[in-house]
Amino acid sequence: MLGQKLTRRLLDLGSLRGLSIDRMDLVDVVDSPLAASTCRSVVADLSEPGAAADLLHPMPDVIFHLAGVVSGEAEANFDKGMAVNLDGTRLLFDALRLAEGTPRVVFTSSIAVFGAPFPDPIPDDFHLTPLTSYGTQKMMGEAMLADYTRRGFFDGVGIRLPTISVRPGLPNAAASGFFSGVIREPLAGVQASLPVSRNVRHSHASPRTAIDYIVHAAELDSEALGARRNLTMPGVSVTVGEQIEALGRVAGQDAVDLIVEAEDPAVAEIVAGWPQRFDTQRALGLGFTPDHSYDDIIRVYLDDDFAPST
Amino acid sequence: MLGQKLTRRLLDLGSLRGLSIDRMDLVDVVDSPLAASTCRSVVADLSEPGAAADLLHPMPDVIFHLAGVVSGEAEANFDKGMAVNLDGTRLLFDALRLAEGTPRVVFTSSIAVFGAPFPDPIPDDFHLTPLTSYGTQKMMGEAMLADYTRRGFFDGVGIRLPTISVRPGLPNAAASGFFSGVIREPLAGVQASLPVSRNVRHSHASPRTAIDYIVHAAELDSEALGARRNLTMPGVSVTVGEQIEALGRVAGQDAVDLIVEAEDPAVAEIVAGWPQRFDTQRALGLGFTPDHSYDDIIRVYLDDDFAPST
Repeated sequence: MLGQKLTRRLLDLGSLRGLSIDRMDLVDVVDSPLAASTCRSVVADLSEPGAAADLLHPMPDVIFHLAGVVSGEAEANFDKGMAVNLDGTRLLFDALRLAEGTPRVVFTSSIAVFGAPFPDPIPDDFHLTPLTSYGTQKMMGEAMLADYTRRGFFDGVGIRLPTISVRPGLPNAAASGFFSGVIREPLAGVQASLPVSRNVRHSHASPRTAIDYIVHAAELDSEALGARRNLTMPGVSVTVGEQIEALGRVAGQDAVDLIVEAEDPAVAEIVAGWPQRFDTQRALGLGFTPDHSYDDIIRVYLDDDFAPST
Repeated sequence: MLGQKLTRRLLDLGSLRGLSIDRMDLVDVVDSPLAASTCRSVVADLSEPGAAADLLHPMPDVIFHLAGVVSGEAEANFDKGMAVNLDGTRLLFDALRLAEGTPRVVFTSSIAVFGAPFPDPIPDDFHLTPLTSYGTQKMMGEAMLADYTRRGFFDGVGIRLPTISVRPGLPNAAASGFFSGVIREPLAGVQASLPVSRNVRHSHASPRTAIDYIVHAAELDSEALGARRNLTMPGVSVTVGEQIEALGRVAGQDAVDLIVEAEDPAVAEIVAGWPQRFDTQRALGLGFTPDHSYDDIIRVYLDDDFAPST
C-alpha cells in the first residue's frame, strides 16, 4: 500500500534530493502494476542471498526499504519473519556495504519497537522493548542501519511509523485493523465492530502523511541527523471515542450509528501493550509534520482513497 | 578471563538453581585448561551452523553465553564481529528454539550498548544507541534474547556488564585498558600511562562481582523478571582521579608516583562517548549487589589475582 503511494508521489514530484528522477526500480516479490517509462518493475526476493547485489548496478541515489512481513504474520510464522524482516534487511545492507557508493537508505520501522509499560508521553530516548517478533526484527534492522551508517557503508534514516489510518481496502485480520475499520466501514455504509473500549488511546498518521515522512527522510541533511539515525514519527494521538466524534463531524451521525460495540478481550489485551502517545521532539525539530487532527485524517481518506459504491 | 573465573566459582559452589552440578561443558574455540571430572572441555565454533545443536544433548539446565570478540576486534574486523557476536548468538538461540526444553540462558551484554550523549545518571529505560559495532551486535543479541524468551524458546537473562577492573594479566590494546592499567601496573612496581584527564568518570565492577552477577542471573526467578530480560548491572562510578586516590589509600604514594600523565587525544575522544554513571534501580531491586567502593575493587584484585614478582 505505501509502496504504491510512494511510487505515485515520486512520479508526481519528478525529483528528489535536487535531482530529477530518471529511473525507479520497484522491487517486490510480485510484479508491480505501476511500471511506466522511468519506472521498472523488478521481481526479486531480498531474503535470497545475492538478490540485493543484482539491484545495485547502477547504484541508486536513494533506496526505500519498505519490505517486510507484517506483525501478525511474523508472529504466526517465526521463520518467515526472521527471514524477510531480519535477513532480508541484513542482506540488502550487506550488499550496500560491499558495493561502491553511499546512497541514502530510508527504512520504515514501526512503533512496534516499543512495548508496555510506558510513560505518557513516550520520550525520544525511551528504550525499545518490543513485545512482538515483528517489533524485535524492526529493532534489529534499526540497530544495523545506525551502525552501517556510522561505518560509512551507506547513509541511513529509520523512521518509526505510527499506525496508518484510515487504511484503504478491505478489513484485515490485524489486531490494529479496527482503528481504520471503525471509520472506513461506516463511510462505505457498512457496519463496523468496535472490539475495544472508547477510552483506548492510540497514535495515527494518514497514508498521505506517512508518504510525506518517507520522502522527507530521503531529503534530510545527514549532518542534522548525527549518529542517532532512527526517529519516532509524530502522530495524532486520539482515543477511539475521539476518532468516532471526528467521524460524526465529518460524515454525520448516520455513519456513527453503524459502529457496533463488540468488546473482544483478546484484542483488548493486545492493544493494551501498544504505545498511546509520543513526544517526538527530534522528528518535529527535523521538519516531520503530522496531520492536524483526526478530522483531517478522515478527510485525507475521503480525498485520496474513498471510492463510493455506485 | 570471566569464563575461567565462572568455572572455578561453579566448581566451588557445587550447585546452581537448587541442583547439584554434575556436569559442565566448557565450550570454546580453544581447549580449556580447567577440564576436570565433572567439567568437560569442548572445542567448537558457535558461528559454524550446526555446532550449537550438537552441544544440547542432553539439554543443560543453564547455559552461560559469554562468547564474543571484543570491541576493538569487532571494530577492526566487521565480518568477524558479525559472525561471532551476532551469528554465533543467533545460531545458539536457534538451536535452543528447535530443541526440547527451556533452559535458563545467561547472556553477557555490555554497557557498550549505550552511546553518548547521555543524561547523568543513565536510567534503566534509556534507549540503546551504540557507537561501536560490538555494542550494536550486543544490542541485537539482547533483542533476540528477549523475543526468544517471550516465545518460550528458552528462559533468558541478559546482563550489561560495566567495565571490569582491575582486569588481571598483561596490558592490552583496548581503549579502556588504562582503567585497569593505572592500578595493576603500579601495584606490580611498573610505570603506567594515563591517557585521559583525571576528571574522566566511568563505571566499574571487579571480576569477582561480575561473576556474582552472572551466577545471580542464573538463579533469578523468571516471574520477577517479566518481559524485560536485559538489565544494566550496577557499578562503582568513580573518576580516574578517585581511582588513583583509592590506589594511594590501598597501596601507598609510591604506587601513585608510578602513574605518568600522557594524554592521548584519540583515547580521550573514544572515552568521551562512553557512559559514566547509571541508576540501575531494576538490577538493585533484583538483588544484584555492586562492589562497595573502588578501594574494595583494588583489594579484590590483590586477593584474587595479584601475583607479586619474586
